[in-house]
Amino acid sequence: MAQTTFGSLTEENMPLFTDLYELRMMQAYANQDHNPTATFSLFVRDLPPDRGYMITAGLEQAINYIETLSFSERALEFLADNGFDDAFIEHLSDLEFTGEVRALPEGTPVFANEPLLEVTAPILQAQLFETALINQIGYQSLIATKASRMRDVIDRKGDGQQLIDFGSRRAHGTDAGMKAARAAYIGGFDGTSNVAAGEAFGIPVSGTMAHSWVQSFEHERDSFETFVDEYGDESVLLIDTYDTVQGAELAKAVADEKGASLRGVRLDSGDLPALSKAVDEVLPDVDQFISSGIDEYAIDEFFDRDGVSAGFGPGTALVTSTDAPKVEGVYKLVAVERDGELQPTMKLSPGKVTYPSPKSVRRTESDGQYTGDVIGLRDEELPGEEQLVTIIEDGNRVTELPALKDIRARARTHRQKLPEKHRKLENPDLYDVRISDALQQETDELTRELESRVAE
Amino acid sequence: MAQTTFGSLTEENMPLFTDLYELRMMQAYANQDHNPTATFSLFVRDLPPDRGYMITAGLEQAINYIETLSFSERALEFLADNGFDDAFIEHLSDLEFTGEVRALPEGTPVFANEPLLEVTAPILQAQLFETALINQIGYQSLIATKASRMRDVIDRKGDGQQLIDFGSRRAHGTDAGMKAARAAYIGGFDGTSNVAAGEAFGIPVSGTMAHSWVQSFEHERDSFETFVDEYGDESVLLIDTYDTVQGAELAKAVADEKGASLRGVRLDSGDLPALSKAVDEVLPDVDQFISSGIDEYAIDEFFDRDGVSAGFGPGTALVTSTDAPKVEGVYKLVAVERDGELQPTMKLSPGKVTYPSPKSVRRTESDGQYTGDVIGLRDEELPGEEQLVTIIEDGNRVTELPALKDIRARARTHRQKLPEKHRKLENPDLYDVRISDALQQETDELTRELESRVAE
Repeated sequence: MAQTTFGSLTEENMPLFTDLYELRMMQAYANQDHNPTATFSLFVRDLPPDRGYMITAGLEQAINYIETLSFSERALEFLADNGFDDAFIEHLSDLEFTGEVRALPEGTPVFANEPLLEVTAPILQAQLFETALINQIGYQSLIATKASRMRDVIDRKGDGQQLIDFGSRRAHGTDAGMKAARAAYIGGFDGTSNVAAGEAFGIPVSGTMAHSWVQSFEHERDSFETFVDEYGDESVLLIDTYDTVQGAELAKAVADEKGASLRGVRLDSGDLPALSKAVDEVLPDVDQFISSGIDEYAIDEFFDRDGVSAGFGPGTALVTSTDAPKVEGVYKLVAVERDGELQPTMKLSPGKVTYPSPKSVRRTESDGQYTGDVIGLRDEELPGEEQLVTIIEDGNRVTELPALKDIRARARTHRQKLPEKHRKLENPDLYDVRISDALQQETDELTRELESRVAE
Repeated sequence: MAQTTFGSLTEENMPLFTDLYELRMMQAYANQDHNPTATFSLFVRDLPPDRGYMITAGLEQAINYIETLSFSERALEFLADNGFDDAFIEHLSDLEFTGEVRALPEGTPVFANEPLLEVTAPILQAQLFETALINQIGYQSLIATKASRMRDVIDRKGDGQQLIDFGSRRAHGTDAGMKAARAAYIGGFDGTSNVAAGEAFGIPVSGTMAHSWVQSFEHERDSFETFVDEYGDESVLLIDTYDTVQGAELAKAVADEKGASLRGVRLDSGDLPALSKAVDEVLPDVDQFISSGIDEYAIDEFFDRDGVSAGFGPGTALVTSTDAPKVEGVYKLVAVERDGELQPTMKLSPGKVTYPSPKSVRRTESDGQYTGDVIGLRDEELPGEEQLVTIIEDGNRVTELPALKDIRARARTHRQKLPEKHRKLENPDLYDVRISDALQQETDELTRELESRVAE
């Protein structure tokens, strides 16, 4: 047990982060000599409520997982102790990815039914990845989208205010704390309070003081003086421990006394737009950072009420995507090799029908604005620009993954190309995603064939 | 970057899983020679919507974190590169916990304002833990509670049906996938599909086949035959890929042909209560496992509609606690040493007032049912049984933590002691939690004192 890392995954048990049924199927594929090449497609059936688009994120971790996955002795022993047979354990110990991965680059707007990633490989390999790929790409895309909505409100109504992720404590576990910071940065945030995420991903880290600092002194004034003694002009003072406006006056007095020009003050409670205006009367030249209950709706209201702010620190609402905490990513078999050829496949389960075959996603634009997408068959001739990029071919990386700051820039550019009506916070207009005639025809034919087989 | 573990935390960067402001305050505590003993209290201000109680979980990881925390060279280098000074880095390199931790044992029902954990230590030590402790205890308690609600519906309306966590793919990151499995087990689940969680925490693991297995064969019958060839009587066949009832008939035919008695069938789509009854006509002696969209409300409806089931596999709704995805755990300074004595402290921030002082939580019962709690001062004489247990004293462990199965048993026993009106799925009755006269008096006096100081 890797308790020293909160019981998080380590290199030793990482390959076991999968559902048991994947391994059970894999053993049967191996032992029953049924290991056809297969294509799995990762997509979301529906966008979360009030989302007119999503922003893709998490591909870097997904690719790295695929490329480095290897079963440790410890993992293999656990499987041997849990009923898996020697031949399969032997097989796992040599497992290496030999297939192909195509994906939407991180920072791309994506819509329902569009593949975020497609894996084509012997089914025994491709099957294993389901749990981990959905987990990483699903969560990071959910948070990049939430972040993008906040940045978008600021682009429309604000003045370039900073957005800093304050959510690690309220994230669902430590990995979410790390990945929320990364995904928020992709979506348009400027930094995080999470030091580990700063170190791991090269994201700017910020933060100054909590109420506990203020309370640890008998008098608020002492707490401000001592903090300014330590940090001088870098100080951001939290002024709402007892009374926000009087806190602002105290901050001003202490700054004057110490000859410091404060970097800012932070407000963390109360009627924030109203208080920020009152504080601005006291400290017109000092930046105000606003936290507590911040999300895209609160930022929108803050601007509508003429609040004064140089930056916001969203926490819980960002990292849990509270208004839409789930995105139901799926990883579905869309093609399988039969008689030496990759053949389309689909299921008929009610409400869970999928489009068959490896796909193409084409996006058209006019005057710098996206006009619509078409999802088609992989090699179909279609208008618009292909969005899926081949990342791994025959098990080898063929495309470099971009730096995080470039992904962030991409997300910004592409968000701005999306007409504003699709970016509304509530009831956004549906973006036009068409199924190509060839894909629709194939879907219809296969449905008929499968239904007739069921009726036999 | 530990990319091989999805960029999750490793022992190397784990100590950096904290908010920057904690370290900034710690440096100032150290350099400004202001390191009083302090008590921080971890609690939730409000229970999540429609929750009449929460079940505590995550303490084992929290304690282990406190006990093993040490700053690696890599972590110290990062901090040195980011503006922290040599004296503080030196200080961090020797950091060791010397204080006290009291906590509610895992598997305990808890209510708003009751401390789940209290840390008393030099403030420089205690401050650091805020982010990680809230993260672990908050998330695990959220999920243990969600799980407990599902088990409770089965206890009332069902027949001991199995509950298996199927949520790893939809959890917010990998750590949530791991901890949801653990917390769900505490809350009354029987197992998980997550192999890594099974290995790390000793939880039973289960799972058989996905739709991809069925689709990978040209005919559903071949897929069933091949699976039964591999797993015999252990087989659980997924029967809804094309048509659920015909899938059941096919499963029966294959079992008969192979002379196997199936362990079960799984239904994963459609009108599950109705389909389960139809399948029961075909396979009256075979266990049915129900997945897709399962939560406490769906289970409740399933029983009301006389669905037939031997077990349920909740996923997304469990691991994201979709109907209530956030629990706003806080870690607040409640006492600080002044003139050599621990003195009560609180803040006055609107909507965020906290009760001062280290606390006692007493629970009374009558006829085996809990009748109410009182939150008082730590050493106050009060009726009922003290719920907080001292886990660490002077930096040393004084209480062994229980095994996971014992925590699970505790959660069950204590949930059953909670009158049913507090366990309703919607609008549960408020459990009686009283503030002791002494604590209320101290709160009132301190409020008056702080307000008069603000007015000065």
